[in-house]
Amino acid sequence: MNPLSFELRGRDGDARTGRLTTPHGVVHTPAFMPVATYGAVRGVDAVDLESLGAEIALTNTYHLHERPGEAVIEELGGLHEFSGWRRPWLTDSGGFQITSLADRVELDEDGVTFSSALDGTRRQLTPESVVAIQQALGSDIAMVLDECVPEAVADRARAASAQARSLRWAERARRAHQSKDQALFGIVQGGSVASLRRESARETASLGFDGYAHGGLGLGETDDARREAICEAQAELPSTHPRYLMGLGKPEDLVRAIDCGVDLFDCVVPTRHARHGLLFTSQGQIVVRNARFARDEAPPDPNCDCPTCTHHSRAFLRHLLRSGESLGARLASLHNLRFTLRLMERARDAIEKGRFAALRDEIIALAGVRLG
Amino acid sequence: MNPLSFELRGRDGDARTGRLTTPHGVVHTPAFMPVATYGAVRGVDAVDLESLGAEIALTNTYHLHERPGEAVIEELGGLHEFSGWRRPWLTDSGGFQITSLADRVELDEDGVTFSSALDGTRRQLTPESVVAIQQALGSDIAMVLDECVPEAVADRARAASAQARSLRWAERARRAHQSKDQALFGIVQGGSVASLRRESARETASLGFDGYAHGGLGLGETDDARREAICEAQAELPSTHPRYLMGLGKPEDLVRAIDCGVDLFDCVVPTRHARHGLLFTSQGQIVVRNARFARDEAPPDPNCDCPTCTHHSRAFLRHLLRSGESLGARLASLHNLRFTLRLMERARDAIEKGRFAALRDEIIALAGVRLG
Repeated sequence: MNPLSFELRGRDGDARTGRLTTPHGVVHTPAFMPVATYGAVRGVDAVDLESLGAEIALTNTYHLHERPGEAVIEELGGLHEFSGWRRPWLTDSGGFQITSLADRVELDEDGVTFSSALDGTRRQLTPESVVAIQQALGSDIAMVLDECVPEAVADRARAASAQARSLRWAERARRAHQSKDQALFGIVQGGSVASLRRESARETASLGFDGYAHGGLGLGETDDARREAICEAQAELPSTHPRYLMGLGKPEDLVRAIDCGVDLFDCVVPTRHARHGLLFTSQGQIVVRNARFARDEAPPDPNCDCPTCTHHSRAFLRHLLRSGESLGARLASLHNLRFTLRLMERARDAIEKGRFAALRDEIIALAGVRLG
Repeated sequence: MNPLSFELRGRDGDARTGRLTTPHGVVHTPAFMPVATYGAVRGVDAVDLESLGAEIALTNTYHLHERPGEAVIEELGGLHEFSGWRRPWLTDSGGFQITSLADRVELDEDGVTFSSALDGTRRQLTPESVVAIQQALGSDIAMVLDECVPEAVADRARAASAQARSLRWAERARRAHQSKDQALFGIVQGGSVASLRRESARETASLGFDGYAHGGLGLGETDDARREAICEAQAELPSTHPRYLMGLGKPEDLVRAIDCGVDLFDCVVPTRHARHGLLFTSQGQIVVRNARFARDEAPPDPNCDCPTCTHHSRAFLRHLLRSGESLGARLASLHNLRFTLRLMERARDAIEKGRFAALRDEIIALAGVRLG
């Protein structure tokens, strides 16, 4: 029994809709996964997420490994029981977080050694241990450990070396992964070098994963370079399998990638922007902390059906954010998450009606619009 | 047309139930008012408050005067429109906040002069200006400015002087208050000196307010001294009018005061305790951050119907609070507020069935119980 099945439904150019069936339910793609760092999105719980229309969420293996530890979560029945989010979970491998958060990170062929950001102890994660941790967490979809190259556009040698090591690690992860009720995704690397990404995709696909991610993008490359990187890789990936673009979530980035045929997304942008008072709306972005909204009784987005827009004004939201009330961050996050999840709903609908190009162009045009 | 009507319903000893009709709806008493410092309870919005069973909320005049200012709120249609809480609001006078938060506070017969905690500017509030601010805010119930004596048990001379000035200020507030759609409550002072409180109550009542508050209690006096202070004052207050004990909200304090015939309460204790991980439950208090709850899959209170207890475990709540996730404070606050509001529901029911003494004794007994 396969832990994952993916059924393609509609198609419009390269954009596509699908039905991803996981051990904890169905996900309609293209789908956006809110990021629940410690098993919860900041200020937003599982009941909220469900009411916003989320069908799958992502949590960070590194953070949960540090606290409370995968043993505690496993003992409590796994992520779904622990967090109250009983729909599908995807866990990342932790590699990206280690590189960006931990101290004294050392990579060798065996794995990653680092000093815990929590207690300073020296720890090691390997392709095998990262699989074991994710199995203990009990996510529906696990990710292989990859070597992340943090620079925007790495030089070719550096990108080639990281891509080669990521591939060897992927093979070890594939062997270590025994679960019948958890899927495992491979990750395409290769920096912004199209030929490397194509090679990485071909070799990763030859290992046979349940789905494939584009890693190491959104680090400063141009829109055209990203499109090329995605397209080159996807030419080598089985079109029958889900494709996941890691870590990008601005509306214009989402529609551009959907246009290339990407199915899954995750990003902290909707919630991080929200905490800073930057809201996505159907009329452009608004910086709701700005003085021009002090007396604005309109909802953040008059065309939005989220709990914030249904009950509160821009003036009240501005007041809360300026007063440092955590409710402001919560209400703004609910809105930006709903905007993003609704964009996925609109994308699925547009693809199935053969009208995706119009939606894509509308959203890209809005990216340049700032209402105050 | 009176802005407030109060109908007494049931009685059990001195404890009583009532129906307080305000311009924005009915409040069943005894009632607890969650504290919405900046027009919102920390992490909890109007929709949440309504679902928790709140019927009236309190907000702090001083905080709203500083930010965003009463002019902005008035322009936006008043507190109800601004905050989204369209049920009754009570505003405090701001006197207590000035004394505890502002710098360089100077009291004279005219009023209170202080340096704003926000921008350092020198400001003055008088009995008249505090009435005007609350009228601009548009609350259902306004409070007179009183002279707060911050010490636990003030000496008699200090208490007598503050009580006398509070009375002169109350008279000025009474004259200044012209609103037909806002009630005004007087405040009984007198420290812990029973004879002073009796005198304060008599003279405050002779000014004729819509309701009466006990001020300056909960500052370290014994339970017996507080009971005496309340009873002495109430002997002089019209029993037909609502009585409000300001700033106390631990479960045992609430039932003790209800037992004396108090009708209204407000307190930050439920939410402040929650943020520190201290939860009220039907089995006693639990400090949910403690290690013993790390693997506890039970809800915070198995007998609670709040959203937190319905969906989440002690282990998850502990994890969120220890990880500094604001969701932890929110979920704990939802629980403690629901516990407190439900205690009011139980008190009303018990009073009407003539069984209040049993509830009172049960809650007082629980006050000594700490589950970890």
